[in-house]
Amino acid sequence: MGGDRRRSGGRAGRREVRAAGTRQAPAFIRRRIPTFDLLDPDGVARVASMAERLLDEIGMEIRDDPEALSLFAGAGARVDGVTVRFEPGLVDALCATAPAEFVQHARNPQRSVPIGGDAVVLAPTYGSPFVRDLSGGRRYGTIEDFANFVKLAYASPWLHHSGGTVCEPVDVPVNKRHLDMVAAHLRYSDKAFMGSVTHPSRAADSIEMARIVFGREFVDQHCVILGNVNVNSPLVWDATMTGALKTYAAANQAPVVVPFILGGAMGPVTNAGAVAQAHAETMVGVALGQLVRPGSPVIYGNFLSSMALRSGSPTFGTPEPALGSLVVGQLARRANLPLRCSGAFTSSKVPDGQAMLESAVSMQAALLCGANFILHSAGWLEGGLAMGYEKFVMDLDLCGAAHTYLSGFDLDEEQFALDGFHEVGPGRHFFGAQHTLRHYETAFYEPALSDNDNFEQWRDAGERTTEQRAAAMVRRMLDEYQQPPMDDATAAELDDFVARRKAEMPDQWY
Amino acid sequence: MGGDRRRSGGRAGRREVRAAGTRQAPAFIRRRIPTFDLLDPDGVARVASMAERLLDEIGMEIRDDPEALSLFAGAGARVDGVTVRFEPGLVDALCATAPAEFVQHARNPQRSVPIGGDAVVLAPTYGSPFVRDLSGGRRYGTIEDFANFVKLAYASPWLHHSGGTVCEPVDVPVNKRHLDMVAAHLRYSDKAFMGSVTHPSRAADSIEMARIVFGREFVDQHCVILGNVNVNSPLVWDATMTGALKTYAAANQAPVVVPFILGGAMGPVTNAGAVAQAHAETMVGVALGQLVRPGSPVIYGNFLSSMALRSGSPTFGTPEPALGSLVVGQLARRANLPLRCSGAFTSSKVPDGQAMLESAVSMQAALLCGANFILHSAGWLEGGLAMGYEKFVMDLDLCGAAHTYLSGFDLDEEQFALDGFHEVGPGRHFFGAQHTLRHYETAFYEPALSDNDNFEQWRDAGERTTEQRAAAMVRRMLDEYQQPPMDDATAAELDDFVARRKAEMPDQWY
Repeated sequence: MGGDRRRSGGRAGRREVRAAGTRQAPAFIRRRIPTFDLLDPDGVARVASMAERLLDEIGMEIRDDPEALSLFAGAGARVDGVTVRFEPGLVDALCATAPAEFVQHARNPQRSVPIGGDAVVLAPTYGSPFVRDLSGGRRYGTIEDFANFVKLAYASPWLHHSGGTVCEPVDVPVNKRHLDMVAAHLRYSDKAFMGSVTHPSRAADSIEMARIVFGREFVDQHCVILGNVNVNSPLVWDATMTGALKTYAAANQAPVVVPFILGGAMGPVTNAGAVAQAHAETMVGVALGQLVRPGSPVIYGNFLSSMALRSGSPTFGTPEPALGSLVVGQLARRANLPLRCSGAFTSSKVPDGQAMLESAVSMQAALLCGANFILHSAGWLEGGLAMGYEKFVMDLDLCGAAHTYLSGFDLDEEQFALDGFHEVGPGRHFFGAQHTLRHYETAFYEPALSDNDNFEQWRDAGERTTEQRAAAMVRRMLDEYQQPPMDDATAAELDDFVARRKAEMPDQWY
Repeated sequence: MGGDRRRSGGRAGRREVRAAGTRQAPAFIRRRIPTFDLLDPDGVARVASMAERLLDEIGMEIRDDPEALSLFAGAGARVDGVTVRFEPGLVDALCATAPAEFVQHARNPQRSVPIGGDAVVLAPTYGSPFVRDLSGGRRYGTIEDFANFVKLAYASPWLHHSGGTVCEPVDVPVNKRHLDMVAAHLRYSDKAFMGSVTHPSRAADSIEMARIVFGREFVDQHCVILGNVNVNSPLVWDATMTGALKTYAAANQAPVVVPFILGGAMGPVTNAGAVAQAHAETMVGVALGQLVRPGSPVIYGNFLSSMALRSGSPTFGTPEPALGSLVVGQLARRANLPLRCSGAFTSSKVPDGQAMLESAVSMQAALLCGANFILHSAGWLEGGLAMGYEKFVMDLDLCGAAHTYLSGFDLDEEQFALDGFHEVGPGRHFFGAQHTLRHYETAFYEPALSDNDNFEQWRDAGERTTEQRAAAMVRRMLDEYQQPPMDDATAAELDDFVARRKAEMPDQWY
């Protein structure tokens, strides 16, 4: 230790091991630091009460979904055409049956994840039509890219979840993509995953495939799939999303209810208004799920973004959404619901300095606000339009650091190293101290991609940037990927289901 | 708004204005968010009590400074050779005369900065022997580089302080550098600055130059210069540093007392031990200054770093120092002293993804822990060995964001935008709403370097990375730099002092 600074197979080998995920990987993070509560309880109550005023005075539109309108009317809301208004207190009361914490089961039971409480689960980026890598640049995503990102998330020790639409496989017809995507999650990974939301029938197919793997009865009683449903902000729910939400809730699976608010466009430019709006929109979605099936699991989601007002472009990793997320976290805890936030956001086109600055700021906000499920933890580029291969593994360094950060500050006697100070005394180094040797293996988190060599070593090794090192790591992880086993009968039944459903539908390409 | 997305002179022009600092620049930040307190008061007391045990059981060595030993002996410490030990409670009592807050005066009174309380002051990086820019790569720093970084810090609206050794001007003899450095701070900037600490006589020269500009009597009664003094960790003070510390304290100027602990080398690998050690070392330095001149200003500093244990290399922007800083902040507040932390740390050689990830994590820790004076806020590369031109302006985006982040979450009625929701209603955009128009100018922080254009615009403009955009901004800022005025008599007196002192000494080059 401290001696061998040469580039050695040993060091590279250890990096490889870490990258390939063969290191003992935690199934999730147990949070041991406080949340960062920006407002006092009166302040939080004021934001919640403003959200109630929005729902009482303005209301939400629920379009093309008479069933939802009827459920809300039956629960005491004031329905006027497609507009639903709520007396203060009503929405909170309708959400009260939702569990504060639940388990999302993975097909590998050791990979099942608690959602809520002090658990933190990291999942990859969701929804990009494009992919980017260093050698090929930017292009539309394919089902091969999709499989690659599922494999990378599976191989990483720092992601606990397989995510959902890790990229859009645009080479598969729109109405059949969900079948290939869910199959890829189930075959290439054994971590928990998310299903389709783009049509209620696709949500139903996703759940049906989960039933093949987990068993019909098990799925009725346990959460095995999440569906990320977006509010059509401001203050509108459309039938595609309420349809998907109702399908997941009816099956006792968990919708993730997410207003998508770009301040200045889908909401006000001021933080307090945007956060109150987000709370109102989320709570109505949660309430709808509870009306469909009381007690069904649900996640309180949010997606706050800012805007470059002079150009109208969205901006990411900026301070306003970071502050807003802290208050959103307080509102979710006030409602006693598990919280979803977003991780490594950026508007940069490439994984450069801007990208990682913005991603670190954004991820830090998610960690501080008390998020239980952090979507978009790895891969995000270009405001979500592109999923980056190198960006994916660069973000993994942030995900790894989150494990250490959330583990907090240990006050155990041994951590104070009194024997070490007595052994070493003033002016001498701790390199060889007994205390150092005892903690040598676990002392510090070491990012896989960060270069800590001295200048000459770095220069002689070719002056590689983080992006170049990341490209090598992507190749290594994909080369060394090993598919988790699945019994033949289940695999065949999945294949049959996909083939049958595909045969039932003509291709749709838009 | 929202319409013109073309690259226009207007937008570029606004960027230029922001970069050149002609925008109304705040003299400092007034913190309006809570500190992030990781430990409860019992936990903080436990760390403080472990620091007292270190000072009681092991003690600190104070080498080659009989005056300091005698001051401590006179104050009740147990002096044994060069080792000084303190009963629990003694050091705290000796530090009690230090002010919780003071003003460091700048030669432009509008640039004077409060140090302590809820004020936050950002200063550039300190101490790098090398500089780096995109076109020239890495090379030794010169006095011209030094002047350039003073000019950049002066031109930036987001730095409140001129810093100290912004790079080592290795083309000037070691024993004369301080004269040119202090002269550069006084001539090229009107912001507050730091003096030399490499020899007590150089500290004295720095103070003498400040007296020429501020007046002898004013300097005796007001703080106009800081001196960054490092502990020779673990648990050693050497005479160079105690000499500089005593010189500043005697002149009623503020030493910044900074243990430099690289966990595993100059301290234990465990966070609790490293933080207890840092507290012990800092408090002894603070106490020494108070013994020299009770009530003189002082800053409680810290510099925590981690280590890649397999190679022995220091690592930066990692989670352990981020957690440690939070506890250091609690200890400084417990001692009722202004706190110095470090900003944009990285071990990367270039301002790439790793650099900005680590810098953002490190800066965020400084903001959360309640730092009053954040050194190394801009420019740091390569573990402090190199000062980067492009890195400097990339870090400024983080410094700008800090202004918004620390301003917090405004709960004023107007911020909730109720009239906007009534005007816009569900499903329509806020672009043209009256509420949006009222807040259009101030709504969101916009980083100067972040590219938020869409992909096609970015591609057609040459696919520039953040580093390339930063290089252009550096050139623009230096081109447009305008020196702040100084009256001729003062300038001549400064020049005479520098010339006379240089003539009195033979050149020393090491």
